[in-house]
Amino acid sequence: MNEFELIARLTQSLPTNPNVVTGAGDDCAVLDFGLPDQWLLFKTDAIVEGIHFTKDTPPEKIGHKALARCLSDIAAMAGTPTAALVTIALPPGFDVKFIEAIYAGLSALAQKHGVAIVGGETTTNPGGILISIALLGSVPRGRAVLRSGAKAGDAIFVTGELGGSLAGKHLEFEPRLAEARWLAEHFSVHAMIDLSDGLAGDLRHILKASRVGAELLKPAIPISRAAKLRAKEGSRTKSPFAAALADGEDFELLFTVAGADAVKLLDAWKKQFPKLKLSCIGKITAGEGVTIRDQTGVQPLTAHGYVHFA
Amino acid sequence: MNEFELIARLTQSLPTNPNVVTGAGDDCAVLDFGLPDQWLLFKTDAIVEGIHFTKDTPPEKIGHKALARCLSDIAAMAGTPTAALVTIALPPGFDVKFIEAIYAGLSALAQKHGVAIVGGETTTNPGGILISIALLGSVPRGRAVLRSGAKAGDAIFVTGELGGSLAGKHLEFEPRLAEARWLAEHFSVHAMIDLSDGLAGDLRHILKASRVGAELLKPAIPISRAAKLRAKEGSRTKSPFAAALADGEDFELLFTVAGADAVKLLDAWKKQFPKLKLSCIGKITAGEGVTIRDQTGVQPLTAHGYVHFA
Repeated sequence: MNEFELIARLTQSLPTNPNVVTGAGDDCAVLDFGLPDQWLLFKTDAIVEGIHFTKDTPPEKIGHKALARCLSDIAAMAGTPTAALVTIALPPGFDVKFIEAIYAGLSALAQKHGVAIVGGETTTNPGGILISIALLGSVPRGRAVLRSGAKAGDAIFVTGELGGSLAGKHLEFEPRLAEARWLAEHFSVHAMIDLSDGLAGDLRHILKASRVGAELLKPAIPISRAAKLRAKEGSRTKSPFAAALADGEDFELLFTVAGADAVKLLDAWKKQFPKLKLSCIGKITAGEGVTIRDQTGVQPLTAHGYVHFA
Repeated sequence: MNEFELIARLTQSLPTNPNVVTGAGDDCAVLDFGLPDQWLLFKTDAIVEGIHFTKDTPPEKIGHKALARCLSDIAAMAGTPTAALVTIALPPGFDVKFIEAIYAGLSALAQKHGVAIVGGETTTNPGGILISIALLGSVPRGRAVLRSGAKAGDAIFVTGELGGSLAGKHLEFEPRLAEARWLAEHFSVHAMIDLSDGLAGDLRHILKASRVGAELLKPAIPISRAAKLRAKEGSRTKSPFAAALADGEDFELLFTVAGADAVKLLDAWKKQFPKLKLSCIGKITAGEGVTIRDQTGVQPLTAHGYVHFA
């Protein structure tokens, strides 16, 4: 049983109440507290020593990553983050300066995005450092972008370049908050997710929630310099293209808009965000599954996203 | 450096914003999202294998405890819980049935208090199981009961009986949500906290936040049957009274009201909650520190609450 199968089993019959707009299964939970113009977004995310960072990771970057991952989930709903709680679980004999540096990284990113850090907790964790962030944000009422709205004929877009995040980006990425809000304000975004498990895996989350398929255009998929460099080094068997499909922790936005909006969006994006690439990488289809088109034709996509427990 | 000193150092200069009513340092953070009649309450709490439960703890009780601790913090603000996110960090090779049973315990308690479980996360934690709960609730606007409102002359009250929680109560306690809301609706509660670190320690949190002192009445402090039994067993040097002062995880409410309200409160409480003891255990003083009065006179209180890193 992998992570997704476990979650599916655990979330089958969770208690709910009238405040819940969207519960488990999207980038954030969406809650209605009766605000006339807003819904609330609620999210937690944890990073663990030995998995998401190592003993050698600079502590400021650990703090940055812990919060940035959660902010990226708020971005994936086209929301605005408001307040965070920080849980740090530490092995006995922790180094106070190290923890302060984690907080410095967290605080700098929080400040940048107007997020208040309103408390948290330290506790003991014998196996290593674990940091869990709980984040509260908001989105204009009725305007949260879910995973479930993709429609056949939609154009599929991705920001930035993909693959090779482990070379450094996973510790330094900027959550695409401003970009996501701009998108939702200016275009009808049908479905959106942030790329944490890899394009192939995360696209499947959209397809499953929306009950559609997709056809990707191989030459359109933006491959990062890091993915290309690592392939050149010959240190791994993965091609740069396979890395762009399957590597985790890109933290770019993957979203769909009606095919008719695609060209207009690309033009407007270039003016608004000239430094960040936006790529139209394929289209949503009425069928099931993912196919990939290149010069030689169309094939089913077999590459898988990173699955935590696999 | 103990847990409280570390937290004090980390929370000295956290980023804030206009949504924050009360940040780090109370039982919950209090946030203003512009609701005309409500503030939001935001809290996280984590429990760790080997510290808060063991390999032999029935998993349903682990789930119950994880959520009940957080609910108890909402109670300490006189609030109502709304939605929870659940983070479970597991060693490799986890037992799915065990995790499902944790969720069953969590869900049963959530259902009882109308709390929706709106998602969460599973991740890997090499050292053992860690469960972190993030909880969102609400409180009538302007009516959150903080730690900082105690005044000289206030009567100090505690619900239930104290000490010996480790004998079983820490896994089964009922968070005092209904009691706290009733208190805040019917009386002017000046300060409140839930007892997690022990009466002596948690009272000091109120005193420090309110810049006052306290005098406790030794014979008035309610000692649990478990604390008395354990002392009889001779398995530890602590007296039942010392256990009632210093044992952690009672999860009862400790609060103050004006001295003039004390008798009226005791009478009304007996009618409203005939099965739950309420004890007036002393008074708030203008000075500093805690003294304790018995037949022989008044002495400074030297017993300390449980300190996690000590």
